[in-house]
Amino acid sequence: MVTDTKDRILVATAELFRRNGYTGTGLKQIVAAANAPFGSIYHFFPGGKEQLAEEVIRTSGPMYIELFELLLFEPATDLCDGIEASFAAAAQMVEETDYADACPIATVALEVASTNERLRVATADVFTGWIEAGTAGFAKFGLDADAARQLTITLVTSLEGAFVLSRALRDTEPVLTAGRAVAATARALTS
Amino acid sequence: MVTDTKDRILVATAELFRRNGYTGTGLKQIVAAANAPFGSIYHFFPGGKEQLAEEVIRTSGPMYIELFELLLFEPATDLCDGIEASFAAAAQMVEETDYADACPIATVALEVASTNERLRVATADVFTGWIEAGTAGFAKFGLDADAARQLTITLVTSLEGAFVLSRALRDTEPVLTAGRAVAATARALTS
Repeated sequence: MVTDTKDRILVATAELFRRNGYTGTGLKQIVAAANAPFGSIYHFFPGGKEQLAEEVIRTSGPMYIELFELLLFEPATDLCDGIEASFAAAAQMVEETDYADACPIATVALEVASTNERLRVATADVFTGWIEAGTAGFAKFGLDADAARQLTITLVTSLEGAFVLSRALRDTEPVLTAGRAVAATARALTS
Repeated sequence: MVTDTKDRILVATAELFRRNGYTGTGLKQIVAAANAPFGSIYHFFPGGKEQLAEEVIRTSGPMYIELFELLLFEPATDLCDGIEASFAAAAQMVEETDYADACPIATVALEVASTNERLRVATADVFTGWIEAGTAGFAKFGLDADAARQLTITLVTSLEGAFVLSRALRDTEPVLTAGRAVAATARALTS
């Protein structure tokens, strides 16, 4: 039960961060969304909101690597088709959540980049983990290390930027267009 | 003088938004940075922080279109070289400001997308303006309307996402890598 409460707090905080950002999310909102007593936050996270935020950021990273691997590297599919399909799935997800749920850490990353070094490092570690996982994954398609790294960075930056525009415009076009561009990059790198 | 004060408030707010976001920027910080009396905010912006934010977002848009046109469309240069040079200039700017100054509206766009409809619409109008200006600009290089729009969206989403990663990682690699990918997209669309 204790672990359940902690998990509920982490999940609720991750969702609130995606929608409201770090500064815009209050502890009262978190306990209400997690259906947890107020004191439980300081019980599980003695460092308060900052420690909770760090744990949310760091647990979001590996979760999205699993999703990424599931979409891109598991099926015996063409790499470019896999990339376009992943972006199409992301577009659908953003549309279905009324343009609320996109990257779990992008809003926080921009908010803390110049204002909170501890959380900035946590977001950097997550992005580094994504880049390393993607580089290793794309190497399986025959790309050399440089090309695999370049493709991964192109994919992650394109998806992050596309989320910014799609959420602002309430339109899936940026995510779908980004998917086509990344697939073209993959095609050029593998041909 | 009156106009000077208003301009100083707008400039100071734009810089604070880039570094701290919308929620993380307080009116006291704004008047201190603008060297303006506290009452001047409500004098020029009776609607307070929200009205000020809307004006900052809406004035940032055209400013960046001018910069974009200067970098990409003015010189009689090769389109792909121009794109790579623009991203290199962006990378240098981000590095020189200690990874603080990047897009003036991205942080705010993510913060308000699901929480403040008035400001969400303002960011959407700016992105739409950028997409229309880029589409018209790239058409001069012989791209048809669909290709020019696709290239513009790819450029803006890549740059926005690259800023997220470069600021978090304190590294110019994502911006430079994104520049190469967008240049490759332009090459494929024009060849």
